[in-house]
Amino acid sequence: MGDVEVQGYAAQDSSGHLSPFLFTRRATGPKDVAFKISYCGICHSDLHQIRDEWGGSIYPMVPGHELVGVVTEVGAEVTRFKLGDHVGVGCMVSSCGECDACEKKVEQYCSRTIWTYNCLDAQGKPTYGGYSTLMVADEKFVLRIPDNLPLDGAAPLLCAGVTVYSPMCHFGMTEKGKHFGVVGLGGLGHMAVKFGKAFGMEVTVISTSPRKKSEAIDILGADHFLVSTDGDAMKKATKSIDYIIDTVSAVHRLEPLLNLLTVNGKLVLVGIPEKPLQVHPKAVINGRRFVGGSLIGGIEETQKMLDFCAEKNITSIIEKIPVDYVNTAMERLAKSDVKYRFVIDLDTLYSLI
Amino acid sequence: MGDVEVQGYAAQDSSGHLSPFLFTRRATGPKDVAFKISYCGICHSDLHQIRDEWGGSIYPMVPGHELVGVVTEVGAEVTRFKLGDHVGVGCMVSSCGECDACEKKVEQYCSRTIWTYNCLDAQGKPTYGGYSTLMVADEKFVLRIPDNLPLDGAAPLLCAGVTVYSPMCHFGMTEKGKHFGVVGLGGLGHMAVKFGKAFGMEVTVISTSPRKKSEAIDILGADHFLVSTDGDAMKKATKSIDYIIDTVSAVHRLEPLLNLLTVNGKLVLVGIPEKPLQVHPKAVINGRRFVGGSLIGGIEETQKMLDFCAEKNITSIIEKIPVDYVNTAMERLAKSDVKYRFVIDLDTLYSLI
Repeated sequence: MGDVEVQGYAAQDSSGHLSPFLFTRRATGPKDVAFKISYCGICHSDLHQIRDEWGGSIYPMVPGHELVGVVTEVGAEVTRFKLGDHVGVGCMVSSCGECDACEKKVEQYCSRTIWTYNCLDAQGKPTYGGYSTLMVADEKFVLRIPDNLPLDGAAPLLCAGVTVYSPMCHFGMTEKGKHFGVVGLGGLGHMAVKFGKAFGMEVTVISTSPRKKSEAIDILGADHFLVSTDGDAMKKATKSIDYIIDTVSAVHRLEPLLNLLTVNGKLVLVGIPEKPLQVHPKAVINGRRFVGGSLIGGIEETQKMLDFCAEKNITSIIEKIPVDYVNTAMERLAKSDVKYRFVIDLDTLYSLI
Repeated sequence: MGDVEVQGYAAQDSSGHLSPFLFTRRATGPKDVAFKISYCGICHSDLHQIRDEWGGSIYPMVPGHELVGVVTEVGAEVTRFKLGDHVGVGCMVSSCGECDACEKKVEQYCSRTIWTYNCLDAQGKPTYGGYSTLMVADEKFVLRIPDNLPLDGAAPLLCAGVTVYSPMCHFGMTEKGKHFGVVGLGGLGHMAVKFGKAFGMEVTVISTSPRKKSEAIDILGADHFLVSTDGDAMKKATKSIDYIIDTVSAVHRLEPLLNLLTVNGKLVLVGIPEKPLQVHPKAVINGRRFVGGSLIGGIEETQKMLDFCAEKNITSIIEKIPVDYVNTAMERLAKSDVKYRFVIDLDTLYSLI
């Protein structure tokens, strides 16, 4: 069987400018699921990669690792999906299946993970992401989107959602009645607030901008808002928070956050600043605290999160855009001007072809 | 009832020189246990405090927070101890009993903890430690030393022992068959090796000095020895250790240690360097690792550790000294010239009085 022609939007170089691009995907193999892509979220890492800000970018690059849609074809050996199912693909499309990470079902830490885009597949061909009309992937890396979730609002769950849900579960930051802090209120942070409330926790948003107070409380349902530059308020909140998830990817001080933690408190980092952060051991030794980190989530965890979202009716708050708005969206994203995730409507791509 | 005269060894100023000193302890109150001190371990923090290296030292100072002995008197309301019992006191003699830390049974994080020495008691009087002949303490802060443990080798369990045992249990670093790394081979490190083996783990000692290999393996029973300055060996050991306890209190790099950890690996700091350490969030985010910290242990945990030591026949390896050797011992301790804990035989104090 021959390859399949697919329309997408690609960056051709580190200018990061995205424009229509024709490419091929493999024909649906025996273990593959093919699906029409309905929506794809725009993750901040898409912006970093189209601009080659992390180095090593492969062009042309079709970004996108929050893609959802409807199954159009399944291979002969596929058991979990059928035509018409709502499905999605997140950050990964393959891993070795044999290493410590794969055995622990955290394929994102496998050293041979094949990322959904800006990576080479097993045949050495570049992988192309979700800013496109059709996806073909091994069913092992295909997630089921529960029927009661709208596909557009579900798309960002595949990266932004699982990136906060996974460490919350893994590190035991889900106990009802506990006090949960969320640092930063972007794509990840707003999901953390939603999960925190869904787990029955008291949620405090911690932010440098006082102007985010009303959205944190009125729109997202947080219980409290703490301005991290307000010394008095931070002092009053000393030792009052059980767990904090820190979504900020700029260099910042951790001690003020650690001081907010109760005894046995936990601080988990999911943002990756460019430089090391300083931590005085005293800040963890006093109060038996820890600083953990986490990268997205494994496939099984991602499915668990989607099922939890279905049960609790959780989706991302999104701004839906046509595909030809994507360059403007990237400019706005660079200024954090989005509440809280841009999601591309891929149906708009057909009219451009 | 009047106070009781007690002989001790005290530092009179920040020279840290210790000499005989007569002081008083309170008469045994209704909830108090009085015991003849048989042995007291010398902790590195005794050295810091007699020399006022942490600031705020109270002189005259009778150091010592690893004291064990035999009960000589109990108050009318004491229920858990009787004359002749083997008992000990560790770092604390009181806490508020009401705060978050006390409720969580980690009294060491209570902001009103009264430390065994170099602290003021509820009446504003200085507390005096175990370099002395007699102790009087609230039974809540008195530990039972199981009868099958020799008192001299048990003394260091009260600080060095629980300082590593507590985080091992709290952070879940006890699973049989797992690979456990111990950084630094002093009073704390050698106890960590013993606990690691007792929990059935594979133990690797990580040290800057190749000359410690034989003692780590032949004397302490570690399975492997890794020289942290040997780049090739460290590279080969990448992602091979499940948990690491880091007992080093000098400034050092954490990334090389984090790189040794498997996915979901844990690094716990129990040494307190003077300056902050640098941690790149990537080093915890990759592999969903964490860096935790821990300070000694709560009273209940300490008793649990002593009972575990009794069951597994674990004590500290010590060098027993007469009290008039203590100034020489301090000089040797400053050069880490001890395997692995000096323990003062307090019976030798009587002959000097």
